[in-house]
Amino acid sequence: MSYFSKKYHAPGTSPGTLAETAGAGGLVIRLIDYTATEFTEKDLISPAECHDYLDRPTITWIHVQGTVAPETLRHVGELFELHPLALEDVINAGQRPKAERYGGHLFVVACDPSLAGDGHVTSHQVSLFAGENFVISFHSGPDDPFEPVRARLRKAGGRIRTRKADYLLYALLDLVIDGGFPLLETLGDAIEETEADLLERPDRASLHKLHAIKRDLLLLRRMLWPQREAINALVRDGEPPITDETRVYLRDCYDHTTHIMELLESYREMTAGMLDIYLSSVSNRMNDVMRVLTIIATIFIPLTFIVGVYGMNFAHPDSPWAMPELRAYYGYPAVWLVMLALAGGMLLLFKRKGWF
Amino acid sequence: MSYFSKKYHAPGTSPGTLAETAGAGGLVIRLIDYTATEFTEKDLISPAECHDYLDRPTITWIHVQGTVAPETLRHVGELFELHPLALEDVINAGQRPKAERYGGHLFVVACDPSLAGDGHVTSHQVSLFAGENFVISFHSGPDDPFEPVRARLRKAGGRIRTRKADYLLYALLDLVIDGGFPLLETLGDAIEETEADLLERPDRASLHKLHAIKRDLLLLRRMLWPQREAINALVRDGEPPITDETRVYLRDCYDHTTHIMELLESYREMTAGMLDIYLSSVSNRMNDVMRVLTIIATIFIPLTFIVGVYGMNFAHPDSPWAMPELRAYYGYPAVWLVMLALAGGMLLLFKRKGWF
Amino acid sequence: MSYFSKKYHAPGTSPGTLAETAGAGGLVIRLIDYTATEFTEKDLISPAECHDYLDRPTITWIHVQGTVAPETLRHVGELFELHPLALEDVINAGQRPKAERYGGHLFVVACDPSLAGDGHVTSHQVSLFAGENFVISFHSGPDDPFEPVRARLRKAGGRIRTRKADYLLYALLDLVIDGGFPLLETLGDAIEETEADLLERPDRASLHKLHAIKRDLLLLRRMLWPQREAINALVRDGEPPITDETRVYLRDCYDHTTHIMELLESYREMTAGMLDIYLSSVSNRMNDVMRVLTIIATIFIPLTFIVGVYGMNFAHPDSPWAMPELRAYYGYPAVWLVMLALAGGMLLLFKRKGWF
Amino acid sequence: MSYFSKKYHAPGTSPGTLAETAGAGGLVIRLIDYTATEFTEKDLISPAECHDYLDRPTITWIHVQGTVAPETLRHVGELFELHPLALEDVINAGQRPKAERYGGHLFVVACDPSLAGDGHVTSHQVSLFAGENFVISFHSGPDDPFEPVRARLRKAGGRIRTRKADYLLYALLDLVIDGGFPLLETLGDAIEETEADLLERPDRASLHKLHAIKRDLLLLRRMLWPQREAINALVRDGEPPITDETRVYLRDCYDHTTHIMELLESYREMTAGMLDIYLSSVSNRMNDVMRVLTIIATIFIPLTFIVGVYGMNFAHPDSPWAMPELRAYYGYPAVWLVMLALAGGMLLLFKRKGWF
Amino acid sequence: MSYFSKKYHAPGTSPGTLAETAGAGGLVIRLIDYTATEFTEKDLISPAECHDYLDRPTITWIHVQGTVAPETLRHVGELFELHPLALEDVINAGQRPKAERYGGHLFVVACDPSLAGDGHVTSHQVSLFAGENFVISFHSGPDDPFEPVRARLRKAGGRIRTRKADYLLYALLDLVIDGGFPLLETLGDAIEETEADLLERPDRASLHKLHAIKRDLLLLRRMLWPQREAINALVRDGEPPITDETRVYLRDCYDHTTHIMELLESYREMTAGMLDIYLSSVSNRMNDVMRVLTIIATIFIPLTFIVGVYGMNFAHPDSPWAMPELRAYYGYPAVWLVMLALAGGMLLLFKRKGWF
Repeated sequence: MSYFSKKYHAPGTSPGTLAETAGAGGLVIRLIDYTATEFTEKDLISPAECHDYLDRPTITWIHVQGTVAPETLRHVGELFELHPLALEDVINAGQRPKAERYGGHLFVVACDPSLAGDGHVTSHQVSLFAGENFVISFHSGPDDPFEPVRARLRKAGGRIRTRKADYLLYALLDLVIDGGFPLLETLGDAIEETEADLLERPDRASLHKLHAIKRDLLLLRRMLWPQREAINALVRDGEPPITDETRVYLRDCYDHTTHIMELLESYREMTAGMLDIYLSSVSNRMNDVMRVLTIIATIFIPLTFIVGVYGMNFAHPDSPWAMPELRAYYGYPAVWLVMLALAGGMLLLFKRKGWF
Repeated sequence: MSYFSKKYHAPGTSPGTLAETAGAGGLVIRLIDYTATEFTEKDLISPAECHDYLDRPTITWIHVQGTVAPETLRHVGELFELHPLALEDVINAGQRPKAERYGGHLFVVACDPSLAGDGHVTSHQVSLFAGENFVISFHSGPDDPFEPVRARLRKAGGRIRTRKADYLLYALLDLVIDGGFPLLETLGDAIEETEADLLERPDRASLHKLHAIKRDLLLLRRMLWPQREAINALVRDGEPPITDETRVYLRDCYDHTTHIMELLESYREMTAGMLDIYLSSVSNRMNDVMRVLTIIATIFIPLTFIVGVYGMNFAHPDSPWAMPELRAYYGYPAVWLVMLALAGGMLLLFKRKGWF
Repeated sequence: MSYFSKKYHAPGTSPGTLAETAGAGGLVIRLIDYTATEFTEKDLISPAECHDYLDRPTITWIHVQGTVAPETLRHVGELFELHPLALEDVINAGQRPKAERYGGHLFVVACDPSLAGDGHVTSHQVSLFAGENFVISFHSGPDDPFEPVRARLRKAGGRIRTRKADYLLYALLDLVIDGGFPLLETLGDAIEETEADLLERPDRASLHKLHAIKRDLLLLRRMLWPQREAINALVRDGEPPITDETRVYLRDCYDHTTHIMELLESYREMTAGMLDIYLSSVSNRMNDVMRVLTIIATIFIPLTFIVGVYGMNFAHPDSPWAMPELRAYYGYPAVWLVMLALAGGMLLLFKRKGWF
Repeated sequence: MSYFSKKYHAPGTSPGTLAETAGAGGLVIRLIDYTATEFTEKDLISPAECHDYLDRPTITWIHVQGTVAPETLRHVGELFELHPLALEDVINAGQRPKAERYGGHLFVVACDPSLAGDGHVTSHQVSLFAGENFVISFHSGPDDPFEPVRARLRKAGGRIRTRKADYLLYALLDLVIDGGFPLLETLGDAIEETEADLLERPDRASLHKLHAIKRDLLLLRRMLWPQREAINALVRDGEPPITDETRVYLRDCYDHTTHIMELLESYREMTAGMLDIYLSSVSNRMNDVMRVLTIIATIFIPLTFIVGVYGMNFAHPDSPWAMPELRAYYGYPAVWLVMLALAGGMLLLFKRKGWF
Repeated sequence: MSYFSKKYHAPGTSPGTLAETAGAGGLVIRLIDYTATEFTEKDLISPAECHDYLDRPTITWIHVQGTVAPETLRHVGELFELHPLALEDVINAGQRPKAERYGGHLFVVACDPSLAGDGHVTSHQVSLFAGENFVISFHSGPDDPFEPVRARLRKAGGRIRTRKADYLLYALLDLVIDGGFPLLETLGDAIEETEADLLERPDRASLHKLHAIKRDLLLLRRMLWPQREAINALVRDGEPPITDETRVYLRDCYDHTTHIMELLESYREMTAGMLDIYLSSVSNRMNDVMRVLTIIATIFIPLTFIVGVYGMNFAHPDSPWAMPELRAYYGYPAVWLVMLALAGGMLLLFKRKGWF
């Protein structure tokens, strides 16, 4: 995911304009219509087909999977009297999560983060409209995540079948939000692994892994931070279609968004401290190497000086000052003794000073 | 853009003083007067010409492009009964964005950031007055950014023609604010590019690029931060000329300012972490170089000592201690063997310790 | 404790699902039933046994120790009419602390941190339900921490026996929260010890110890932060079962959570500054070593050059320029004098510059 | 300005005690008494002289310049019935800015920062009392900054002459606050200059300049931060002597304090990042130097080894192993060739690795 | 002062338990009983002696200096009907400052920081109970700081004698809080001194001094932060015994706590930046040393190579290639010339590159 991932119109375009965006197509529209006793499920070719279900007291859920085409959206918007600004937000994916009230219906934008194949975090926009007896959901990704909710709806007698549309809205939001837990578990494991790597063998690969995790955490946080505020707005919103019974559940949902944000924040602090570990580990290792090498050099440099001295060619034929050592009987072994003593003394001194 | 870019009067000057500021001139005044059915557009020579349009129930939009001269401003101020403090803020460009109510009209200051030719962010002040049936806009830059709105106004039947002056105010603000998205997209790309550079080949040029980006982000944030607050004040302001229908649109506008601020904040965090990448990359590279060089030196220093030993001139004619090695049959190759073994042993040891 | 320690259901599971979680078993259920004058205490085989105590005006406390099995929980839930969302939170341990009202009863989640055998902080979830005349407590750890409360209950005439169920709730929360003080005392001592180590002899072991402390503090803070908010919600909650007399005690409890958070924050700041101490100590020591070694090398390098000069073999038979020094009467001692003077001068110079 | 610059009494002194403070003397008292039509200005010897102006409906402005003596202050306090705590704050200069209401009058403390001769920021306390028809101002510095306001007062017909005492209070505050703009402009220029220095030629002088700027910014921020809050308190204070007409002007004043704080904050962030530039520039330069020097050393060390080899004196009279190279016809040039090849190869290798 | 300095009971102890704490003894109880006209002062042996003063309309001030014994406290508590939780906080010194209302009386905990003999900050707990006509104060330290208040009380006719018990409470708090100013002045001086040291001659001693200051500031901030909140609670508390006249004084007190916190915060920021100064100074100095030493080495290494060349023993009897330089007439001075030129050239090059 890149740092800037919002779609937008040219500044100055009339608000509510639904322009073609790249990648439209592969659209799937699924309709579910239910009461506690009845249940209909079918795939639609066009939104017009759901016209029949509108005036009935049943709860109608239309799910649109994939990048939606402008005309489809316009059609849906007219059928359900949705606000053009909300529709614009559906088509311009990459919106920040929010919950807003337009006339009689609620409009909720959530984001559905997941791990892409390359191990990086990616995100899809989930847009939800909810009225008294309908929910319309849009998911911008390739795969439909709402199958578990559909399975619960199919079972007659479940709690979800006896509640209103607001409970369905909750169920969809809950699923999207709870999807953050497995994601954070994976990230938490990756952080622990990277941390162990950095403490034991700090190399450039784990540094890059750390950087990638930090980037993912930052992007995740940017996406999820407003989501918490949005769910909170839903909890506080006392008007229809949100009922008091569902508010208890939304409060639970809000608790989960808060938990996820707290986990994210603590992850970010963990990783912030980890660069310091890396740097001090690297610097420690470098210091060790340099110290040993420098000590070796330092010991040999005076010795080399000594042997240099006796490589000098001073040779006045008569002068007793002209390097008499060279002509001494035990000169050579004496120099060796001096040198060994010097090297040993230096080693001892350095050791005592704790330099290696 | 420099760190301090506000124009101001000498402290103690009477508030509302409209003094000549440098660079005035090149002024263009454009008037548009419209209702749902009528539309007039013309360029003015002086503000006095718009007198005729004032008492009519049409919506009058006067746009002043460029650095405004004090007398022009005073004239406009008298015509529309604008507050002298607001007029002072128009002429002293570089104000922080704000929305304030002076008697019956609203005064909004926004900033219009853009990328200058040298790749740096620059900014112009947009000042807007809005009453029941007029909008007066001032833009301090050389180019008029409001052409798209004018194009929408020219088309009969558009939503903008059927709404009040507050919707026109919204349309102008929306254009200015949405101008932030392409700017942030460009900056986001620049950050990704610089990040890749810093990870792969950290050099001084990418460091300077990073510093320039950070400076731009800081200046942008300083300019845009109060803008969000200003739009929020407009959304919450329940009184005329802001109507409830337009408030929904302003809320969308507020959402965009929030989105832009969140993007900016995440950019700033990205770039904050990037200096660490650079420093650890540079330090890694430096360490690699120094380590290899030091190892080479460390291996040769003992060898140089050995050859120094046999360069000594100990030569007692009779002493069997006077460097007998020099006179040994295989002395020379033996020394080579010793030296090769020593070098090999050191290399092996350093390798095993993971020093290179 | 790992970075991610929450149990959770697969996203999309119906809310209130009580699924088997790993590690269930070893369950102990303890019932205490008391008024100011009566007192019954017994261990239960199944929650059904407490049925007899429900309708009586006595205060009933059921404590479930260990990982609870779903059927047990369902049973308890039905008996006391507990909300399924709250029951789900009991079984999915690792919840963030919170206080919530479900219908007529309060549900409080707290966390009970303690030092594990390996010196690291670990945590267990405490879940509490409180109604007019009952308290049900769950503790996910192996050991029952509530024995001191039980001892106070057994003594007739104590304040705790004359109060309502809300005072019992307070007593349990107070015990859990005050458990933070000995923990923080231990951590404070560990920080002071590590700080002294880092100042006096900075080594890798104390760095790792510092890192472990920082990790513990971060995890503790993440767990305890919401606890303060939860207790505050209890203090502000003016409705039954919380009475005004108990609110004074809960306020004291809130004061303790605040004190603990402030201690934690100041510990975190302490440890944040300590890495800087370590790094500057290490760098100081390294600098000292390198400086001395480099000075030794620097002094001998010119000397080695000099002795190298007189090791040259220039020997034109007649040239007076061909190293006449070699044939000078005092040549050798003169060179020694020059070298000693040079070495002494350099030492003096370096000393005067404060280089060692 | 030093880090602690508040004057204070010994703890336990009775509140409102007006003790002698160092540096009193050189006091100037200026009285201006005006209505829209009348204007009197004179210098006073003692506060008692202003007694005549008190009961008249004119607006009386008494300005006391310099360190005030306790008895003068006590006299003024009794004349105008000022609260002893406020008088204590006048004499103990170095108070934090605040706006407080004591009975019928307002007491405002502001700080008037300016650049001292040594280029550092210094600050003087401005204390203002305002009632229905009087303003009393104290300025602790040597120079009277209020001359521009006096000039405006002298001109009959100006807005300031037709308004109440609250407008005069505003005019004085506005002058003091707007004095921040030229100061910040100077600081902004100093920051840009230092930044350019640090990027191009990082030396110790620019580091010290940066440190001085950071210190000034910190002290300025500490002084100005509460000022914003104080002005805000005045804007929100709906009671006399503040009138609604003046509140619009105070709101403008508040906007300026906010602008100044935002500029200060952005300056602080700028300078925070600049130390990193300096450090990485210095480290870059150091690395360049060390790398080149080390490369030179590394190339010569093996060569010196080689020439050392042929300085050895192996000389068995018959052995063909005793350094036959020395006696080879092309031995000497061959060694040179080997050494040149070795040096060239190393240079090539280092270059290819990008080490210099 | 250590990082954890709170006394606490074993978790699970009944709230309000007054257990023996270490160090009790050396207790002094002082009673002052006064009205505007009457004044009694005496030292008590036991709290029971103050029984006579209770029912009279005089204001009774009992001060207990030193670590209080549980039975004394219990006695006082029963006499004045103090809440057991408050008494527990008196005996468990190290509480965070707070102001709480228990039934009819106020309970205030403040902390009285001072410089201990070793230059470190230490702190004692001040606990204050205030009712309509009594104040009971406890100070956990060895010395009684309230003598100045007692001196003011002894003087008939002072403001303090004519006011109620709430004014006495204020006077005691004011004394404790204002004690922060001399402390902060001392710390400010220490910071300035350390800063100058670090800029001029950075050594380990000033680093340790800096660390000690940071630790003191952190501990001070942790203690004083809640104090501000506590005083604010007193200011806002509109009920008896706090009267409106005293509230003006408490507001002044609150202003002082805010001033102290702002000073502390700015000190903390000062010291945060100072480690950077130290590190960059140290690194600068180290770089200077290393650079000069490396340059010396670098210049001599090629020279040593050259003299090594002419130390080689190539000596083919007939070959003109066998080191003809050695036998040249001006060979030796020529080599010297080459070496001097080389050394001079390198020095010039390094100088021009600005390396030293």
